Amino acid sequence: MKYNGKPYRTIWLGSNGWIVEVIDQRRLPHEFEIVRLKGLDDTAFAIRAMVVRGAPLIGATAAYGVALAMRADASDTALQHAYDTLLATRPTAVNLRWALDQMRETLQALPAEERVAAAYRQAAEICEADVIINNTIGRNGAKLIQAAWEKAKAEGRDRVNVLTHCNAGWLGCVDWGTALAPVYVSHDSGIPVHVWVEETRPRNQGASLTAWELKHHGVPYTIIVDNAGGHLMQHGLVDLCIVGTDRTTAHGDVCNKIGTYLKGLAARDNNVPFYVALPASTIDWTIEDGVAQIPIEERDAREVTHIRGRADNGTMCEVLLAPEGSSASNYGFDVTPARLVTGLITERGICPASPEGLLSLFPERAAELAATS
Amino acid sequence: MKYNGKPYRTIWLGSNGWIVEVIDQRRLPHEFEIVRLKGLDDTAFAIRAMVVRGAPLIGATAAYGVALAMRADASDTALQHAYDTLLATRPTAVNLRWALDQMRETLQALPAEERVAAAYRQAAEICEADVIINNTIGRNGAKLIQAAWEKAKAEGRDRVNVLTHCNAGWLGCVDWGTALAPVYVSHDSGIPVHVWVEETRPRNQGASLTAWELKHHGVPYTIIVDNAGGHLMQHGLVDLCIVGTDRTTAHGDVCNKIGTYLKGLAARDNNVPFYVALPASTIDWTIEDGVAQIPIEERDAREVTHIRGRADNGTMCEVLLAPEGSSASNYGFDVTPARLVTGLITERGICPASPEGLLSLFPERAAELAATS
Repeated sequence: MKYNGKPYRTIWLGSNGWIVEVIDQRRLPHEFEIVRLKGLDDTAFAIRAMVVRGAPLIGATAAYGVALAMRADASDTALQHAYDTLLATRPTAVNLRWALDQMRETLQALPAEERVAAAYRQAAEICEADVIINNTIGRNGAKLIQAAWEKAKAEGRDRVNVLTHCNAGWLGCVDWGTALAPVYVSHDSGIPVHVWVEETRPRNQGASLTAWELKHHGVPYTIIVDNAGGHLMQHGLVDLCIVGTDRTTAHGDVCNKIGTYLKGLAARDNNVPFYVALPASTIDWTIEDGVAQIPIEERDAREVTHIRGRADNGTMCEVLLAPEGSSASNYGFDVTPARLVTGLITERGICPASPEGLLSLFPERAAELAATS
Repeated sequence: MKYNGKPYRTIWLGSNGWIVEVIDQRRLPHEFEIVRLKGLDDTAFAIRAMVVRGAPLIGATAAYGVALAMRADASDTALQHAYDTLLATRPTAVNLRWALDQMRETLQALPAEERVAAAYRQAAEICEADVIINNTIGRNGAKLIQAAWEKAKAEGRDRVNVLTHCNAGWLGCVDWGTALAPVYVSHDSGIPVHVWVEETRPRNQGASLTAWELKHHGVPYTIIVDNAGGHLMQHGLVDLCIVGTDRTTAHGDVCNKIGTYLKGLAARDNNVPFYVALPASTIDWTIEDGVAQIPIEERDAREVTHIRGRADNGTMCEVLLAPEGSSASNYGFDVTPARLVTGLITERGICPASPEGLLSLFPERAAELAATS
């Protein structure tokens, strides 16, 4: 999507054709800086230090990390070392392992002298596939925004209001994003879409990343605290919610950034459609009940008691918000049960958040289930 | 309640018997500093600049402000000037007008030479009445915590968990608080009560004031982001919620700090009791439907996009959290419909959040209604 009027992806090859360039997301929204990755260590650092974040982008970066490693040494030992080093950077990231497995499988089958070219090709394919999937999610979801806009227009309103939580935008992917893809497709096609951006404490991915994305692509947005979403829905100020998901169960429960569940409740209480956008890769067919079965990561309490931002003098500053020595809990995610989800927006189309709904879009899975039962 | 092992109120007379002393709440939770009010202007500044905040404390401070004004000049003109000056400090504060009306009514009836003593007496009575009301709310609400503790103990747990939002503690009153009064009474009587303190964005009254109060009184607490309350309730980690209210309708709807409604929804979805603690003075008998009838204050967007805290070097620092120039909305309150409220804890006892429930505790109001219908 656009930054300073120019289309960007989150990862691309530099002009010399082999250096990998990424946006330093730690510096957003206050500074836009490009980091150049020249080898395995750079890449591992970029993932570990969250220069790049978001499951699809982590996978894509790791794939290019293997390519960079192959440039230095294309031996079997080096391949395995790159695999192990990159996998250890973010051990719970599903896409990371998936991308690394793909790379290793392809490269192992080739003689060393063919590995560099093949690795770059495969990494590019991983990126391209991500772009196509998310653009398709965008086109599918845009139909919902289009319909909501027709309704809003008929009521004499001049915009359609989408509420989103956290950052499920292009910064977490290679381009487009998941929950924000329908927003971009709608905006680009001339629909007057406005986004309520929930700041998303504690890490504020909404106020920093989502707001930054929308600002630079030119989509109108308003930042709100996470507390405000229910009030907006009570007063008819939200036409639909679209959020992302880190993990989707076979029954349609969604595990997403902490606080998503509260918005699902408010949406149901006010008859606001609540959609979740996801690539098929987030579906965990082995799990049914998300609340009971998905373990929720607990993160550092300091993310709650401290916050970082830009001081008036332009320097970055971290401040303490609570009494010294306070204890804090920091659950990273929560589970929104399928009963609160109006529909799932996938690259295969939109379906109800239910076992039947998912199987209708993924009939190959239904066939597998039939074969094993 | 206690600070550094010593009992405090939020407002008291200095050792000379006439200077009014208050805690500078702008400096909490990082510094404890006492401000001495010596006259009308000091007092008006303290209210306007939010050195003191919370409806009951604002009323009590204004009452003492009139007493200080009378010391300088006890004429009718000076009385009216004090009334007007103090009323203008926080125009929407209901208790402010109520306290000033009480003071003016008493003093107008007296000769100038009796006004100083009468004003100090009346201000002390306003404070004392607040303490008694809140202590009674505390004793009434403590029965609920006691019952929840019995249940928790029977299940083999070692503490009872109360979740609260914003600051409805002693800092907003003269002592005890409203929602926190039951917690203090329970804690002081030996019940192992633990409080989940929601930080309460955007002004973070939970992380700063509630946490500070509980810490210094010795009540175990854990700070969470507002997004986390639903997840805790889904997993049985909350035994009951107790929140305050700024305005309660005759039908039992409650208007409280933004985000309260979302916790009401989560409580209902998980069968967690959701109680609201309030002095009768917050009941607005003229209003029935809170969502439709209560206008919600919109505050400065800067409270959302910026936050203030203590930097590592000990200085206070305000930082920007969003892209430069982002627009933000800042609704201060929301309305939790009575259907989500398990009960109202008042100085008269606990009642259902319904017209009948409220009239059962306030039969004089039922008699009035009968007379006018």
